Amino acid sequence: MTSPASPSHTHDHDVEEGLAFAPKFDRDGLIAAIVTDAAGGGVLMFAYMNADALKATIDTGVAHFWSRSRKALWRKGETSGHEMTVEEMRVDCDQDALWLRVRVAGTGAACHTGRRSCFYRRVEPADGGASLAMVDGDRLFDPRVTYGA
Amino acid sequence: MTSPASPSHTHDHDVEEGLAFAPKFDRDGLIAAIVTDAAGGGVLMFAYMNADALKATIDTGVAHFWSRSRKALWRKGETSGHEMTVEEMRVDCDQDALWLRVRVAGTGAACHTGRRSCFYRRVEPADGGASLAMVDGDRLFDPRVTYGA
Repeated sequence: MTSPASPSHTHDHDVEEGLAFAPKFDRDGLIAAIVTDAAGGGVLMFAYMNADALKATIDTGVAHFWSRSRKALWRKGETSGHEMTVEEMRVDCDQDALWLRVRVAGTGAACHTGRRSCFYRRVEPADGGASLAMVDGDRLFDPRVTYGA
Repeated sequence: MTSPASPSHTHDHDVEEGLAFAPKFDRDGLIAAIVTDAAGGGVLMFAYMNADALKATIDTGVAHFWSRSRKALWRKGETSGHEMTVEEMRVDCDQDALWLRVRVAGTGAACHTGRRSCFYRRVEPADGGASLAMVDGDRLFDPRVTYGA
């Protein structure tokens, strides 16, 4: 979202209050996509879409993303079978972020590490910095088998 | 997250499985931050943190972001009173996204438009494209009063 409270900053009323879908892609042609579990509600993963991935998602009802590492359109679950059916997609106030509520096929795992969510570690303050604690570390599948790594 | 399934793509085992916090900032020095309601679970907003905002968030337990529009450290709620107390912060597999579960002070609104969540519109297929439907449009405060716009 954009931040308020600056005299020099103007918000676009049509973008924020209108019903025209005008997704704002960044300079790489991408828009942020937050994926949550339609049943449980927790955040499953975070990724980006380009215009093609967004169109494919809307057209098929199945989540597509842009893989920044592979530089390719990516139908989530194409290798693992963990397809994501979109129950609802929302856009934020300034239309530069999407929120998808999904049902995950197969084991229900969204993370390539085999876990249900990519967010399986908590950030905790430690010695003036921070360290991590494993909180949802159970694997629902073995990535070495699924991806043949 | 990163996408799997490419022979040329390697995952960093230490980053994914270790307990060292090693946030991966993008070329602008920012990391994505997803904010959900610790009580209700829904996504409230999406923003970015730079290293200073992340440190301030960890040190104070109150959400700070980097305002891309104002190019400034931004303590969420500094103008509106809608401070966000962080109940839990998590990081994703490749440590390039954060998930904050927060309690929002004041009216409980997270969006500068006065709404509880920035995601108050649903994206719906329409005529080969998409349009928006208002789904959580109620305002908890009047932004014209709060921000003096």
